[in-house]
Amino acid sequence: MTGRHAAAFRALHAGPDPLLLPNAWDVASALALVAAGFPAVGTTSLGLAAAAGRPDATREVRDETVRLAHLLAALPVPVTVDLEDGFSDDPSAVADLVARLPVAGVNLEDSTGRRLVDPAVHAAKVAVGKRRCPDVFVNARVDTVWLGEQAGTEATVARAARYADSGADGVFVPGRLTEQQIAAVTSAVPVPVNVLATAEHTLPRLAELGVRRVSTGSLLFRAALDEAVTVARQLLAGRPARSPTAYGTVDARTREHHWAGRSLTGPGAAPVPGD
Amino acid sequence: MTGRHAAAFRALHAGPDPLLLPNAWDVASALALVAAGFPAVGTTSLGLAAAAGRPDATREVRDETVRLAHLLAALPVPVTVDLEDGFSDDPSAVADLVARLPVAGVNLEDSTGRRLVDPAVHAAKVAVGKRRCPDVFVNARVDTVWLGEQAGTEATVARAARYADSGADGVFVPGRLTEQQIAAVTSAVPVPVNVLATAEHTLPRLAELGVRRVSTGSLLFRAALDEAVTVARQLLAGRPARSPTAYGTVDARTREHHWAGRSLTGPGAAPVPGD
Repeated sequence: MTGRHAAAFRALHAGPDPLLLPNAWDVASALALVAAGFPAVGTTSLGLAAAAGRPDATREVRDETVRLAHLLAALPVPVTVDLEDGFSDDPSAVADLVARLPVAGVNLEDSTGRRLVDPAVHAAKVAVGKRRCPDVFVNARVDTVWLGEQAGTEATVARAARYADSGADGVFVPGRLTEQQIAAVTSAVPVPVNVLATAEHTLPRLAELGVRRVSTGSLLFRAALDEAVTVARQLLAGRPARSPTAYGTVDARTREHHWAGRSLTGPGAAPVPGD
Repeated sequence: MTGRHAAAFRALHAGPDPLLLPNAWDVASALALVAAGFPAVGTTSLGLAAAAGRPDATREVRDETVRLAHLLAALPVPVTVDLEDGFSDDPSAVADLVARLPVAGVNLEDSTGRRLVDPAVHAAKVAVGKRRCPDVFVNARVDTVWLGEQAGTEATVARAARYADSGADGVFVPGRLTEQQIAAVTSAVPVPVNVLATAEHTLPRLAELGVRRVSTGSLLFRAALDEAVTVARQLLAGRPARSPTAYGTVDARTREHHWAGRSLTGPGAAPVPGD
């Protein structure tokens, strides 16, 4: 099932500009981003977990993640899914999970419950996952800076290089990085480097630093929550309602996607888990 | 299980100002609205359905609705859940569903798949639901204006009055109403009248017209989706990322709610469906 739109996704990392990858948390947010013209969609584990009322990065939302990956399979663009740490310490179990997903790519992070894991264990997940699913874009996340541990650039570069050596198609270093840190990673590893969109660096500057993918992480999800609160507060203050995208537009694109998904899974194909 | 925070919810309809009820679509949006100080939270069936990739108002998301109601049970404020048409033509089945939900209130609409149902059938759902769950605030929705059918005020008032006679605690007339239509309903029925927040009427004006509850319906959900797209487009245009509510804040309030829910359901209590 893996590798859906995989070649197209890989090519997006080799374009003239870095890939700006917006991260969705449910079907509606993914459809809105596709309707807006974004050429690929990722998922955010914080968004997915918080929507379901669960903590992030604690292996609590494996089933929800699998379910969302299937629900997004009918999208006309590549999808890459945030798998936290693969929801397992066992590289074979991680590879089994990746093999079940109808996706172009996955993110695998080298921390569990906010603790860095041994880079050898993470490198094994990457290597076994790639052997099992060679066409899937495996993005190996380096959480040194994100967790504020071993934030020295040397450890970050060492982990990034090790994952690339193990077959990772890309490395992702989230967190607040300095320009020097970003340049150190992009110059040290031969695969596309992914960072988060932050207030510190614009997309053009990240491109100059050699970054090939810029993810929004949970930014869009958190901005969306804030906007819901802002609009509700405006109403409470006596302001008239604004007019966002119409009810009929949202429902119509959901219906279209729903039917595309049905024809995709069709008779004899694997149903969405939980259906 | 029904009637959680029911007395408090009922009282919110008798305050000095109309209740502005914001509608959430998942746990995260509900928690954001509670954190912002709103005294009660509703749900939006469009939001819930679109998030799950299903069409609205077609009985497609009964299980997701039940699940969300349970996931919101640990909120410190009353919750009222949009049950579409009760997901059944059978008043007893609707009452059984209401009785399963740990909520302060429910909305039941008198249309199925965008067609108005016989008001006698809807009145029976209201009456049987109220007999079974007397403390739950049953808000009977009149879809004449919403669907653009029988939009004459007379039919709307007749349905509203019939549902109030059948025991509805409130009536809800969504759609674009004129001031005359609103006043006709509020003067004709003895129970709180609920309308949607629209661009046409501010909250103070709706209060003058006798409205006691103003719902956001799917407005916040649609505004949130638009905001996600806006932020992504700004990044693509080379603007630095803004700083919405922090990752840690969202994750921390999710964790707190998650633990509150565990202690609520506790050993021996009914688990969240699907867990």
